[in-house]
Amino acid sequence: MPVPGPGYSITVRVEAPATASAAGDLVSAVGTRGGVVTAFDVTESHASTIVVDISANATSEAHAKEITDHLDTLDGVKVRKVSDRTFLIHLGGKIEVTSKVALRTRDDLSRAYTPGVARVCQAIAANPEDARRLTIKRNTVAVVTDGSAVLGLGNIGPAAALPVMEGKAALFKKFANVDAWPVCLDTQDTEEIIRTVQLLAPVYGGINLEDIAAPRCFEIEARLREMLDIPVFHDDQHGTAVVVLAALRNALRVVGKDMNDVRVVVCGVGAAGSAIIRLMLPLAPAHVTAVDVAGIVHPSRQGMDTNLAWIAEHTNADGQQGTIADALVGADVFIGVSAPGLFGADEVATMAADAIVFALANPDPEVDPAEAQKHAAIVATGRSDYPNQINNVLAFPGIFRGLLDAGARDITDGMMVAASAAIADVVAEPNASFIIPSVFDTAVAPAVAAAVRQAAEQHLSVTQAAAEADEAADA
Amino acid sequence: MPVPGPGYSITVRVEAPATASAAGDLVSAVGTRGGVVTAFDVTESHASTIVVDISANATSEAHAKEITDHLDTLDGVKVRKVSDRTFLIHLGGKIEVTSKVALRTRDDLSRAYTPGVARVCQAIAANPEDARRLTIKRNTVAVVTDGSAVLGLGNIGPAAALPVMEGKAALFKKFANVDAWPVCLDTQDTEEIIRTVQLLAPVYGGINLEDIAAPRCFEIEARLREMLDIPVFHDDQHGTAVVVLAALRNALRVVGKDMNDVRVVVCGVGAAGSAIIRLMLPLAPAHVTAVDVAGIVHPSRQGMDTNLAWIAEHTNADGQQGTIADALVGADVFIGVSAPGLFGADEVATMAADAIVFALANPDPEVDPAEAQKHAAIVATGRSDYPNQINNVLAFPGIFRGLLDAGARDITDGMMVAASAAIADVVAEPNASFIIPSVFDTAVAPAVAAAVRQAAEQHLSVTQAAAEADEAADA
Repeated sequence: MPVPGPGYSITVRVEAPATASAAGDLVSAVGTRGGVVTAFDVTESHASTIVVDISANATSEAHAKEITDHLDTLDGVKVRKVSDRTFLIHLGGKIEVTSKVALRTRDDLSRAYTPGVARVCQAIAANPEDARRLTIKRNTVAVVTDGSAVLGLGNIGPAAALPVMEGKAALFKKFANVDAWPVCLDTQDTEEIIRTVQLLAPVYGGINLEDIAAPRCFEIEARLREMLDIPVFHDDQHGTAVVVLAALRNALRVVGKDMNDVRVVVCGVGAAGSAIIRLMLPLAPAHVTAVDVAGIVHPSRQGMDTNLAWIAEHTNADGQQGTIADALVGADVFIGVSAPGLFGADEVATMAADAIVFALANPDPEVDPAEAQKHAAIVATGRSDYPNQINNVLAFPGIFRGLLDAGARDITDGMMVAASAAIADVVAEPNASFIIPSVFDTAVAPAVAAAVRQAAEQHLSVTQAAAEADEAADA
Repeated sequence: MPVPGPGYSITVRVEAPATASAAGDLVSAVGTRGGVVTAFDVTESHASTIVVDISANATSEAHAKEITDHLDTLDGVKVRKVSDRTFLIHLGGKIEVTSKVALRTRDDLSRAYTPGVARVCQAIAANPEDARRLTIKRNTVAVVTDGSAVLGLGNIGPAAALPVMEGKAALFKKFANVDAWPVCLDTQDTEEIIRTVQLLAPVYGGINLEDIAAPRCFEIEARLREMLDIPVFHDDQHGTAVVVLAALRNALRVVGKDMNDVRVVVCGVGAAGSAIIRLMLPLAPAHVTAVDVAGIVHPSRQGMDTNLAWIAEHTNADGQQGTIADALVGADVFIGVSAPGLFGADEVATMAADAIVFALANPDPEVDPAEAQKHAAIVATGRSDYPNQINNVLAFPGIFRGLLDAGARDITDGMMVAASAAIADVVAEPNASFIIPSVFDTAVAPAVAAAVRQAAEQHLSVTQAAAEADEAADA
């Protein structure tokens, strides 16, 4: 049963009789239909009538309409206007491009634009590395999508994906002062996406791939990493993996288990699931089982793509076959990035003692968290209305801040593990309801940035030393 | 002889003896080497020494160094640090991406990002036209270059072109509140540029092509106009043409000549020259002669490309052949968008009475404006240190403001002529030194925007009526 939330929030302007009970009647009318009143503002008051703006949260558009229609049936009440507050804040877009330099006088113009800018161009032409010093490249990330796997909405295309990419850009700025720009591509062809990002790259210090469907996303990321001299990061994969590992690290602390002793079930082997497995394996959990719609992934399964074959080869050492229910028996950790309502409390009961359940399918988790709570020691979801929200915004702003500050040319698993540890360590004393910091904890992004920057600078000096050694050997 | 300007402006921090004459000595030392002191700030004062920041304009980097070196030779003076003020303002880039929405609380996040944003995405998926209402597309223009013809610098590539595109974006915001974003493409292949811009287009309400070499720019623009449902405008062509026509309109008013009676010579038939000719021809000047490096363009010339062949066919009704000097004899108007120092006062003397000379090659004009002034009634250049500066910034911000406000799907010559008239009409009483408004005249962009918007809305309603008539005929 969904809970009324700010995502479906309306403001209804109504005219009502100016009686002593009018306000109370309106508020309780919203309540009887299941709405939650969040604000009540009288905007006009006359002898016999008042005009009121009632803001309320609902569960859906239909629910919002039901509330509004009900208000309209009340004696003497007339609904004048209904505003959808979510749509209101998206009107005209959520980001803008602003100038950092004053352009008040002719001298300003002569320095920022012609003729002065010519010398800056010549400096970059002579020494391309200067682009990181003298242009926005220093601080700018492309948020690239083809609109093929947007939120839970699927393949809605590039134009409909833009509100998400704008939101992401706003978050980049808010949490880490990174300038991010939406690149919504009108193609879903792997080669065209790769080539286009390559052609756009001169302006950017990093590429954040976003909401691109698997398995296409794997090849796009791998090929771009190979060809570009800036880091390429697919947030749906690695952002999720970094935050999940951070939460897992603290969850294990709380239940007093060691990573090397636990059996982990990962359900869903798309972008997020694959990345979680790949980032976790080097940390050497005792056993990892991957599960998808066809059940447990095992090496003798037919018709697997490259990604699935890799996972089959590197997980499930026991060679187990069966369903998600089979996989859960005796497992210490469940990590779901798949689909809603796959199992219930009974299956959680079959897990090991002090079980950890991360049910991250959005908006409806793999198992109802209230049900899971009955047998699991720790439950986390992707939702903001339960404790322990696993949210990528804890990772991507700080990660790119660190990469840009280091002038990084690539991103490694080591940097991501460092980011993960930094997120976990922001929580000084984790407990079952607090394994991961709040998305509004301002300590997170700087901590992640510092950890990533350090790892990236180390990596840069190692690769530079290696390159110099190669040159010396060639000479 | 170049004049010291803010494009080469330095701030020198010097330590000098704390004597009564120290300040005067330093200022005059800069003066003796031809520098122009613009600011003098004492930053520290001790018993025997003072530390001073001297800001000065120079003519070149070498000149700036000469001034600095000279200061260092003065008795008791030590140069501590030299800052290049142009480079200083470019450090870290000139634009940033900022959020227009508050992201302070979880409710803000729920509306701007998940889960609320999903409904906005769905609305656009259901009705793509909503992208102009609910995303940045409404107000956003791509500034697209391949870095092949940047300012007077030529083919310096996409990274070195970025400071110019950032500057352009800053001007778009400053003068017309348009959000513009630099797209610097790492290819100079016509087909790749076209395809890339097509793939990027969903985010934008307009495309400003910039500093792309001729003749490639003609095909890129024509093909993109054909395939996209947003306006495509090559500023080097049309921005220049619009401002030149505005200046010409007022110049003719000042000398009391009519467009239909004048003989015009256009020198340079690249992007700007071709566009000037094409936009001017429908206004029916008495005679137009085009000139390029090979002399007067005439129909029997060999090896002309499509663009040049079109010009040969539509100009030079007299079939004249010869040099720029031959073309100038008896001409009423010279418009140069070509190369420095092509002729002198003697050739200007051969023009008709009350001649108009627009010598726009940058930074050094086709004819020294002081020489041209001896015989011409009106002289204009592209430089800010002479009267009558022809500067594209008078056109592009207002043009795109008008196009975006109209929701225009294309741009026509009619809209550009309307923009041109609007710029000219901002000058109520033109005279020989004031045929075009200042770039800082805040009346220009709104006037241009209003004129373009009106023309674009008229065009939209005509094309929509035609489309509906077609549909009715098909039914």
